[in-house]
Amino acid sequence: MQRALDINRSRFADWYQAVVRDADMAETSPVRGAMVIKPWGYGVWEQIQQELDRRIKSTGHDNCYFPMFIPLSFIAKEAEHVEGFAKEMAVVTHHRLKAIDGKLQPDPDAKLEEPLVVRPTSETIIGDAFARWIKSHRDLPLLINQWANVVRWEMRPRLFLRTTEFLWQEGHTAHASVEDAVDETLKMLEVYRSFAEDYLAMPVIAGEKPENERFPGAVNTYSIEAMMQDGKALQAGTSHFLGTHFAEAQNIRFQNDAAGMEFCNTTSWGVSTRLIGGVIMTHGDDDGLRLPPAIAPKQIVVVPMLRDKPEDADVLKYCEDLVAMLNKERAFGQPLRAHLDTKKIKSAEKRWNWVRRGAPIIIEIGPRDAAGGVVTYMRRDNLRDGDKVKSIAKPRQDFLENAVQLLAEIQAGLYAEAKARLDQSIVRGAKCFSDIEKYFEGDEDNFKGWMLVSWCKPTGSDPWLDGIDAKLKAMKLTIRNAPLNQPKEFDDCVFTGKPGVEEILIGRAY
Amino acid sequence: MQRALDINRSRFADWYQAVVRDADMAETSPVRGAMVIKPWGYGVWEQIQQELDRRIKSTGHDNCYFPMFIPLSFIAKEAEHVEGFAKEMAVVTHHRLKAIDGKLQPDPDAKLEEPLVVRPTSETIIGDAFARWIKSHRDLPLLINQWANVVRWEMRPRLFLRTTEFLWQEGHTAHASVEDAVDETLKMLEVYRSFAEDYLAMPVIAGEKPENERFPGAVNTYSIEAMMQDGKALQAGTSHFLGTHFAEAQNIRFQNDAAGMEFCNTTSWGVSTRLIGGVIMTHGDDDGLRLPPAIAPKQIVVVPMLRDKPEDADVLKYCEDLVAMLNKERAFGQPLRAHLDTKKIKSAEKRWNWVRRGAPIIIEIGPRDAAGGVVTYMRRDNLRDGDKVKSIAKPRQDFLENAVQLLAEIQAGLYAEAKARLDQSIVRGAKCFSDIEKYFEGDEDNFKGWMLVSWCKPTGSDPWLDGIDAKLKAMKLTIRNAPLNQPKEFDDCVFTGKPGVEEILIGRAY
Repeated sequence: MQRALDINRSRFADWYQAVVRDADMAETSPVRGAMVIKPWGYGVWEQIQQELDRRIKSTGHDNCYFPMFIPLSFIAKEAEHVEGFAKEMAVVTHHRLKAIDGKLQPDPDAKLEEPLVVRPTSETIIGDAFARWIKSHRDLPLLINQWANVVRWEMRPRLFLRTTEFLWQEGHTAHASVEDAVDETLKMLEVYRSFAEDYLAMPVIAGEKPENERFPGAVNTYSIEAMMQDGKALQAGTSHFLGTHFAEAQNIRFQNDAAGMEFCNTTSWGVSTRLIGGVIMTHGDDDGLRLPPAIAPKQIVVVPMLRDKPEDADVLKYCEDLVAMLNKERAFGQPLRAHLDTKKIKSAEKRWNWVRRGAPIIIEIGPRDAAGGVVTYMRRDNLRDGDKVKSIAKPRQDFLENAVQLLAEIQAGLYAEAKARLDQSIVRGAKCFSDIEKYFEGDEDNFKGWMLVSWCKPTGSDPWLDGIDAKLKAMKLTIRNAPLNQPKEFDDCVFTGKPGVEEILIGRAY
Repeated sequence: MQRALDINRSRFADWYQAVVRDADMAETSPVRGAMVIKPWGYGVWEQIQQELDRRIKSTGHDNCYFPMFIPLSFIAKEAEHVEGFAKEMAVVTHHRLKAIDGKLQPDPDAKLEEPLVVRPTSETIIGDAFARWIKSHRDLPLLINQWANVVRWEMRPRLFLRTTEFLWQEGHTAHASVEDAVDETLKMLEVYRSFAEDYLAMPVIAGEKPENERFPGAVNTYSIEAMMQDGKALQAGTSHFLGTHFAEAQNIRFQNDAAGMEFCNTTSWGVSTRLIGGVIMTHGDDDGLRLPPAIAPKQIVVVPMLRDKPEDADVLKYCEDLVAMLNKERAFGQPLRAHLDTKKIKSAEKRWNWVRRGAPIIIEIGPRDAAGGVVTYMRRDNLRDGDKVKSIAKPRQDFLENAVQLLAEIQAGLYAEAKARLDQSIVRGAKCFSDIEKYFEGDEDNFKGWMLVSWCKPTGSDPWLDGIDAKLKAMKLTIRNAPLNQPKEFDDCVFTGKPGVEEILIGRAY
């Protein structure tokens, strides 16, 4: 039997595009690099937002909204930040259009005195507010989050993974001490790790980015890195300890107990619609998307098999009752999301649409099921037996009693599958750089996973860091992060032969 | 006793600013015309979003997300649309910054071939997608909604009411017939009306806008109009029947049953953060904001009266238990939102903060309350007896059993108060234009409410329409709408003396 997609994972980039298209998640738009997120893709984002927002609030953060336009002079204040972002920003220069010689164009009389930048991230505009809001140590910590769209010009866009405009949340906090700010940075990293693993069923490695991969203006950057099914890494979330860099540039100060003025230590952290790309590349298979039940907009889809015959009414009634009963249940702390597909297309077409979209459980009800009180369903996580699609038939009461448990099982199974792949695909034992070269040589599209190696953690003042970076880049490799869980002893540095002080992950990345 | 605000409603514009500031809702930003929405203001927006989103989904609409940048050529396609919006748009002309002579500026080498406009509304970019998505009558109706930020350049910005950037939802739908599209337009108008009245406790008049106040490109525009406490109207939501205007400009066509190609009839409809301004100007009093419980981010606030004494522990424990018990209840279909204020400031200051912010019920618990099992509270909707603040003491069990009912009572009371004001402030009986002039003459800041008059409903080809508009504008008056509920018989037209065919509301507006 044919697969639901016309392309399999051996051609990973094409497969990814096919899944996004056939699962009806998103499409490119006439605006270069920007995407249209379609209902099924946006539905996944809504599930992500809802649960992550709950976790961000339960750790004490309040949501706000800040202007999307940032005066150019704000960006210019923090030198490294300019360096890091200045190359990819959308710039608003006019506030009116005018028909000139019959052609609509920016009105020269409406040129802005100071150009505005569309936020690539909001440290500068939020820092400006923080400088006004914070007066004394009693105002700290200040814990703010924002859900927003941001723009970073992309020359090589890819749906969900790299788009000129994308949706994200960005947390911004200010603290009285270094310790408090570092604690916050790591606390939010942990929120991201647990969210990715519990909710997206996407195992990740949480760790610290090397110096040359830090956020522009950060003292330390931490990330969660997920392994895609082509063995590449996806940076799925970042958390930054910014020290007093932004506070100094923006004069974010507080009166301390001793009545002196001190600069705040700040943090920022974010995840974006990129997570959806991560979910697709973690869980998709040769039939299309498989969605973890926790984030599936519809967890159980019921397809009535109608034939324009009198018994259709009974089938429909049976399906409606089934959906109503399922929707009374709760799964993953929310009301269960069951859906009756009444679209006027053939039921076989519906089945394959839901397979490609990754609905976790797909139920097909025909007259015999309805008459016999049976539920016949497919598990999307475990769709086939060899080439054949597996259909499971259960008495209705049985199915209803176990539906929530079944969703939890599917969620756990998807995680376990991805976790096994991650664990098996991290290679140790490289002693020197040529071991790395040997391991990764050949076609870069071949699955290689990551290497975990010891190094001496050189810093920017050490010429080695740039040298290492260049040698890795030549092989399209990067240091992903230094995992938070470190051993007690280290091999010698694979780059220098000096004593190792840290283990780092090396791999190819999105 | 002093009021919580330092200004009362007799100076309405200043009072509004003071409420927004002292309730900690929003503030102006360094970006001209844009606002920072602070946690309490954004919390109200989240409540609005959550409930309205539920209503939009339950009427069959799916959420999507479309690019915020619109190619200039898209805007140019629909002539009236250009006319209506071209004057107030932010235009992106460059995609990179560069330091030239030490000064950061748009990089001349990164000038866009085609300028991009930041969406003032999304008919054109969404219509472009509709043209791709719709092939046959089976794809109709197509029912889409989007939550997004939009930009319309404002020369005279006012927090929440008129800001350069604001947040809104915009629904966009396509239908096979005029009837279906008109039904949709009116259905969503009714969703807005019931939401405003049930949830915001803000009575409105739903009706059709006169021709000269239509959305640029619309065949008909409908609005809900709310009366503010200075007697002015606030257009609080609009719903547009667009006919085939946009479909023709963008080639949105479907194959009909007879296998011919037809243009779709489309609609659009939206409400924005402006609603928050409406809530403030509908319910605020001389002590600040009063929030309808349904949209209050915190519905019941508990202030422990602590004195750095040993009995503080008992007070805190009592308050924590009270909040925990309240949070188990459900109000307005959601878990009740009770909050313990543990900020390290004086309890009197906390009380006034919550009064100004409009928390519906404010509980103050001292050692005697805790020891006696009593709850002492204030109702924000009915705060004072003369000048004195009214405190009500109830046995805890009594209070707990009635808390949900009390919130419902406050909600209903706020609505009834505003509804009585609206009903009393619509004046009838004007026979000719000079009656209108007489009624509205004098200081435009004096409360006048609206007039309901008959007219002959002239159209654009009739010189009277522009003439009427100009005469009204000279008195800062506009036609708000023609209410959906019309009488069977009409007086003669107040403008022309011809037979009347419709009643319209005339008033000053935001």
